[in-house]
Amino acid sequence: MVINLDNFFNSKNKDSKTGDFQDLDHIDGLSISTTSANLYGNKRDDLVLFYFRDGANHASVYTQSKIISENIKWNLKIKSKKIKGLLVNTRNANAFTGKKGFLALKDIAESLSELLSEKQKIDEDIPEKIKQNDLLFACTGTIGETFPKDKINFSLPELIKKIKYTQNKYIWVKAAMGILTTDLKPKLSMEECKIGNTNIKIYGIAKGSGMIYPNMATTLGFVFTDANISSSVLKKCLRKNITNTFNAISCDGDTSTNDMVSIFATCKAKNSEIKNFQDPRLSDFNKSLNNVLLNLAKRVAADGEGASKFITVNVTNCKNELHANKIAFSIANSTLVKTAIAGEDPNWGRIVMAIGKANIKINLKKLNIKFGNYKIIERGEIYTGYNEKDLTKYMKNENIDLNVEIGTGRKKFTVYTMDLTKKYIEINADYRT
Amino acid sequence: MVINLDNFFNSKNKDSKTGDFQDLDHIDGLSISTTSANLYGNKRDDLVLFYFRDGANHASVYTQSKIISENIKWNLKIKSKKIKGLLVNTRNANAFTGKKGFLALKDIAESLSELLSEKQKIDEDIPEKIKQNDLLFACTGTIGETFPKDKINFSLPELIKKIKYTQNKYIWVKAAMGILTTDLKPKLSMEECKIGNTNIKIYGIAKGSGMIYPNMATTLGFVFTDANISSSVLKKCLRKNITNTFNAISCDGDTSTNDMVSIFATCKAKNSEIKNFQDPRLSDFNKSLNNVLLNLAKRVAADGEGASKFITVNVTNCKNELHANKIAFSIANSTLVKTAIAGEDPNWGRIVMAIGKANIKINLKKLNIKFGNYKIIERGEIYTGYNEKDLTKYMKNENIDLNVEIGTGRKKFTVYTMDLTKKYIEINADYRT
Repeated sequence: MVINLDNFFNSKNKDSKTGDFQDLDHIDGLSISTTSANLYGNKRDDLVLFYFRDGANHASVYTQSKIISENIKWNLKIKSKKIKGLLVNTRNANAFTGKKGFLALKDIAESLSELLSEKQKIDEDIPEKIKQNDLLFACTGTIGETFPKDKINFSLPELIKKIKYTQNKYIWVKAAMGILTTDLKPKLSMEECKIGNTNIKIYGIAKGSGMIYPNMATTLGFVFTDANISSSVLKKCLRKNITNTFNAISCDGDTSTNDMVSIFATCKAKNSEIKNFQDPRLSDFNKSLNNVLLNLAKRVAADGEGASKFITVNVTNCKNELHANKIAFSIANSTLVKTAIAGEDPNWGRIVMAIGKANIKINLKKLNIKFGNYKIIERGEIYTGYNEKDLTKYMKNENIDLNVEIGTGRKKFTVYTMDLTKKYIEINADYRT
Repeated sequence: MVINLDNFFNSKNKDSKTGDFQDLDHIDGLSISTTSANLYGNKRDDLVLFYFRDGANHASVYTQSKIISENIKWNLKIKSKKIKGLLVNTRNANAFTGKKGFLALKDIAESLSELLSEKQKIDEDIPEKIKQNDLLFACTGTIGETFPKDKINFSLPELIKKIKYTQNKYIWVKAAMGILTTDLKPKLSMEECKIGNTNIKIYGIAKGSGMIYPNMATTLGFVFTDANISSSVLKKCLRKNITNTFNAISCDGDTSTNDMVSIFATCKAKNSEIKNFQDPRLSDFNKSLNNVLLNLAKRVAADGEGASKFITVNVTNCKNELHANKIAFSIANSTLVKTAIAGEDPNWGRIVMAIGKANIKINLKKLNIKFGNYKIIERGEIYTGYNEKDLTKYMKNENIDLNVEIGTGRKKFTVYTMDLTKKYIEINADYRT
């Protein structure tokens, strides 16, 4: 993590693969602060607090792994109606740390809830205490190392001191950077939409990099909105929109113990509360939420460990979405496909191999394959106008689209991934050393 | 492929990972010849013929891919009781080459059957013609390129001319090298056993390197025996012994269109024909066949593209074999596990991750993990005597054993794989260029 905040804004957030960053600003009811607990030993920010002074409605989806981290266990137990804070740390996943890891979170929750209660009383004269159970945790980093409870506890006062009630683009980038591990770039996204006549903001940040498959491995994604929406409706919105966004990316086919994507609604916007998922006022919100999640998910894939190219795998005209999903992931997870693309080699034979191994019946006579707009396979045969020179030129792009038409129906699925480079090996062979 | 035959024998076939090579010699009824059709443009041997002058009983297992190569289609149609020959070519997979690819094989089969008929007549006065349908094909190499029919046809007379009726260790190594693609080492294995009082030979060669998962992706394996065993019994023997050998290896999680493992029996040994799979005389044969297949399969994994280490994943004490298989492959196919091992990093957290993502319910309190003999996890907690220094030293070995006890039953499965290195990327990013 070598990004300098000044450089970041001077370069105007350029990202040739996924487009420029947007400038996020204030969401009423949300405060952000970041600090360094020196978990990496280099004073980078590694602790980020999202504080909801009047609480927030909330929904999360978590990793599908059968071994989950202690913070996920903690979060799954939280039944509070309003969440007051989310504390994110990097460097240590608090996974496979056992009861000790869980108790460390309890200890931190105790300190943090007291400090926040105190601040609340001083700043806003609110006498009610914030409870441990109003807090959520996100952890990411190495599995199986002792959780650095003391370092984190020691840094909490500083974190509280830095809370400001108005947010700007700088604090968002600091937060987006403070949650990263081996990611190279912060990931931010925003949309504005309407609920009835009310303007609504939907902001999000994410981290990714390794273990990104499927169901959000090592991904952390946090979305914040000022919309007034009940927690149960938020849950449905998140589930509806996660399928073709965070569940449609893959970096290395690995799945972490720590994934979570959460949405928090401060309910400060003036719309009357949405309590029903069928409420027609949700349609614009859902569309924008999908955009925010997709934008973040793509940035996660584009910044996958060692990535030099961003790959979009479109599988269309399939019998059903599950078939399309399986074929798309079979291509996106193939190390041979991903290394060929790293080598800028239009080795479409490997696409054919990956389609074949997906275990879905294929009618070759109906199969079409294009790289970008370049036809390669038409109805199961090499396209008569196939020109390897054009294709070789196409492979030099940073964005590669693999378009596969199965020809057995009308359903489709798109998966986003990156190429597999020597850099990936470098990063992962030396992660702990 | 840079192995020189003289160097090969001078170095006495040393392989620090899988043990020395054995010296294969003559199997009655089998002839081998190799030549170069110059398919690689560097005059290496790329055509290998196995000729059974009196025919051979035969069984094969093929790739599970839904897209199969033209030679697999050809082989699946062959119903001849006795196989007269197997022609293997490298460089071109004859996959996704359509009807033209199939017709090319027909054309080659026509020439080859005529040439062999002629030789048979001259050498042995046998007037019966060898039929196209008595021939099998194995192809390996790039998918989707026009099959080099003419170059192969042109080389057939030379191939026939080189047929000798007695085989020695040199011709076996030449054959084992002639079928390779990106493999670095030829793969040979042999066992001798008894059927009743009769001495039986079981010899085998294989190639592998990429797309090795599961069900034999890009693997070619050919086993030859002089035993007198019917084709239907051979089929059952092959199926029985493939599960924990060729179906227990993985290099990169990819599966090819061309895999085949075949067994040929010349029936020249003096045992009375075995027609029943329950025949007690088979037990020694099955054991030896398993050894030959396992030896070859391990060599394929050990020589996986870019491999610097050979990894054995033992998953034991599982509820059933399928669970053990799924967990073992989840570990063996994890790029994060494989890169950590490439980096000699005892990052057991990634083993935990890979166990978790296998989608099998895990009782952490019963989970034990060892690297070699070094305990890491004991009943779900870090072993009290855990010493990272010892472990780091262990990781410098060329052979790494990952031992995982699930603790829910008595079943087990072992998978063989290799580490994932920069070299793998190099090989696969530049395969066609």
